[in-house]
Amino acid sequence: MSRRSLEEILHPKSIAVVGASDSGGRGGGFVVPLLQLGFDGEIYPVNPRYSEISGLTAYPSLKQIPGSVDYVISAVPAAAVPAMLEDASQKGVKGIHLFTARFSETGRPEAARLEQEILRTARTHGIRIIGPNCMGLYYPSEGISWSDDFPKKSGFAGLASQSGNVAGEVVQTAVSRGVYFSKAISYGNAIDLNECDYLEYFAQDPETKIILMYVEGVKDGRRFFNSLRQAASCKPVVVLKGGRGRAGARAAASHTASLAGAVELWETLVSQAGAVFAEDLGELIDLAASFYFLPPITGRRVGVAGGAGGASVLAADQCEKAGLDVIPLPVELREELKDRGVAVWDWIGNPADISIRVDENFTAGYMLEIMSRCPQFDFLIPIVRGPDRRNRKGASVDTHLEEYRLHESSRKPLLAVVADRERDPTESDEAWRWQQTGLMKAKLVASNIPFYPTIGRAARAANKLIDYYQKRSQYQH
Amino acid sequence: MSRRSLEEILHPKSIAVVGASDSGGRGGGFVVPLLQLGFDGEIYPVNPRYSEISGLTAYPSLKQIPGSVDYVISAVPAAAVPAMLEDASQKGVKGIHLFTARFSETGRPEAARLEQEILRTARTHGIRIIGPNCMGLYYPSEGISWSDDFPKKSGFAGLASQSGNVAGEVVQTAVSRGVYFSKAISYGNAIDLNECDYLEYFAQDPETKIILMYVEGVKDGRRFFNSLRQAASCKPVVVLKGGRGRAGARAAASHTASLAGAVELWETLVSQAGAVFAEDLGELIDLAASFYFLPPITGRRVGVAGGAGGASVLAADQCEKAGLDVIPLPVELREELKDRGVAVWDWIGNPADISIRVDENFTAGYMLEIMSRCPQFDFLIPIVRGPDRRNRKGASVDTHLEEYRLHESSRKPLLAVVADRERDPTESDEAWRWQQTGLMKAKLVASNIPFYPTIGRAARAANKLIDYYQKRSQYQH
Repeated sequence: MSRRSLEEILHPKSIAVVGASDSGGRGGGFVVPLLQLGFDGEIYPVNPRYSEISGLTAYPSLKQIPGSVDYVISAVPAAAVPAMLEDASQKGVKGIHLFTARFSETGRPEAARLEQEILRTARTHGIRIIGPNCMGLYYPSEGISWSDDFPKKSGFAGLASQSGNVAGEVVQTAVSRGVYFSKAISYGNAIDLNECDYLEYFAQDPETKIILMYVEGVKDGRRFFNSLRQAASCKPVVVLKGGRGRAGARAAASHTASLAGAVELWETLVSQAGAVFAEDLGELIDLAASFYFLPPITGRRVGVAGGAGGASVLAADQCEKAGLDVIPLPVELREELKDRGVAVWDWIGNPADISIRVDENFTAGYMLEIMSRCPQFDFLIPIVRGPDRRNRKGASVDTHLEEYRLHESSRKPLLAVVADRERDPTESDEAWRWQQTGLMKAKLVASNIPFYPTIGRAARAANKLIDYYQKRSQYQH
Repeated sequence: MSRRSLEEILHPKSIAVVGASDSGGRGGGFVVPLLQLGFDGEIYPVNPRYSEISGLTAYPSLKQIPGSVDYVISAVPAAAVPAMLEDASQKGVKGIHLFTARFSETGRPEAARLEQEILRTARTHGIRIIGPNCMGLYYPSEGISWSDDFPKKSGFAGLASQSGNVAGEVVQTAVSRGVYFSKAISYGNAIDLNECDYLEYFAQDPETKIILMYVEGVKDGRRFFNSLRQAASCKPVVVLKGGRGRAGARAAASHTASLAGAVELWETLVSQAGAVFAEDLGELIDLAASFYFLPPITGRRVGVAGGAGGASVLAADQCEKAGLDVIPLPVELREELKDRGVAVWDWIGNPADISIRVDENFTAGYMLEIMSRCPQFDFLIPIVRGPDRRNRKGASVDTHLEEYRLHESSRKPLLAVVADRERDPTESDEAWRWQQTGLMKAKLVASNIPFYPTIGRAARAANKLIDYYQKRSQYQH
């Protein structure tokens, strides 16, 4: 029997959750997210110990479900999977997500044998498997999710993550940065569908414009390299590798039974394929936000404005360290400042230190605006202050942001830096400030401006984004 | 006339703010912080345009102040400083903080000449100068501050920062991590008292146990190296260097008229002196928290617990990358897990992945506790989840933290990782969670446990702290 493609199992009309419970925790947790995200097909909880789960009729077994079942989420123990597979084949199931764990990742030979037996049975019946030992599918436009915390709103980032924990972290953190998902797949031990299948799927998926991956190990290095090169030639692919050192590799083996390779090898492989290597989870998110919101940038000349004093000095350092070109302020901009009557016109540089606020003609917004008209800059980094206590009376987030005149500067790509400044959370001023800063960030991404917690993270993300687009344009010429 | 020491000017009985106003903003801002922090000497606002400022009698000039004046904060324009200095000498002033700017940092020869003239006059009159072009002194136990946002509470961190902006950022951010200050000094162009004076002062200051520095340039490289070596031999010194690249050096020149040197030179110098080099502002804060709360650690064998799945894999990677030794879980701990009846005893490693929660005998707290009794670990990193939505009903921060049993594990040094997870701030759950996480952090530092936003930052800080104490013990043997 020819194998079904991933696409064929992603649009189920009915989903059975086998091993469901109403306890809300592990296992039982898969019914509620489907209800919450508004899955509009049939949902069948299966568990002989219940007659009803989360307001839905529960069935004692898959076989006793009245209608057909397209997709199964399995939360039964490992030993119960083979029998469940037989039932599934009778119901015409196309795909199974095995949340079920304790297979090869335990390091126990009998568990690894059971895993292989399950794979053989599934292949015999033409059933595709996501997992085992994973959280499965988040597909907001189909109303499918493993967490009721995930948004209903769709976007165009695709995520394939070998770890469910990392997948959850990436989705939640990315969302807080304005990045939404077409689909996110947590795929665990990957006995059937593996990292290459997911990557190849996202590469051709019209709903997905950027691809994010968290990988601990790959089954077939050559195929992975080719898939990665192919995917990266048509859309940005960011790869975070888990299990890079000795201890990490040990942890990966017991996490998803992966043989993790040396980090240098991986960096080279990812870079040779034209994809982008993320150093850690934070950088994966920074790169996601960058590729999500920014147009292709192919030059490294950056203009920075909005910092004050030492912050401007450190901004220059961080940008240069990341590989960007912090050019001196072009002469014509100095002349423009002079013509405008800015007293300190010969003192202002790049980064433009705006601590000299006594001069009313000189603001961060004015500086950004003239930089945005200057052909010598490839992109700009505005350092945006959070609303502070003194803003509290009167100034809204909008009037605060207006100072930066970002819309007028949007002819250049903009990467905003908004520092997270945590203070005493019991102070009402601070709670207010936290909320206002959040609203400000939401305004930024609504204008397609990504934001970053530090200048160093913005600069490093920009540099890697430029690397990607420079390489891609080389390949295409 | 022999020069007064810094110590002699730090305990004024009376302070005059020359160029004060009641506008609250620049210049006028120096009266309110003194009132707010409870300075208990005389405060004399000086400005001929006011009869009263912030409820205090204002004087037209320094000379007309009835009593003696020990210390002056100058917010008058640069051109008015020489005359003010003459007045100050008549009033017996010992020290002047020149907030006044637009001197050599402007790059203008006449401004640099004026700066030198001021220095000569001050020396003639035996007056010491902090600045110019800086925020001056924060000395909470004396009630002296340049910002009314700074806490009244004292601590034992000392800060000397060439930038006022960076000084403010360091104080505020450090406080949010539980680090409080003996004194913080923003010293700007440093025409008289310079980085060496401040460093030497903090080295012998009994109120100061760790020293933080932000430096753009030094006046005398040899003296600085010697001062740094001397200071680092008796207490931890962390140095952040601004103006490291070409653009940063340009920015430093226009910020504090500093000749900034190449970064490699600085890293070598700081390291050779036995002090600690901080890569950026975030690392300066991480190191401040580490040295503030942790005892000397001289071994790199770390135990990590509390992460789940891929987070554990990434934790191992980040620790190894930072230079730590993530040893395999010692056999005797495996045996202990087995004896306790933990089903997955042979699967648990280091980092201890606690995603297998089905086993009630196995928790992060239990794992940390047995690791803390094991002589093979030098220190531990607990990964502490923030309280989440599901905790909202009932579970307090205390009961949430109890899960980690940190008090029972405190025989080993602990570095807690508490991720900052920003979500939608308009959701009441999220505001609650933000506040609870803040309270949790406050509980941690109240128990002398520093916290870090990511495992990578915790690991890098630990590694540099160990470097410091290893070097120091070598020198002392």
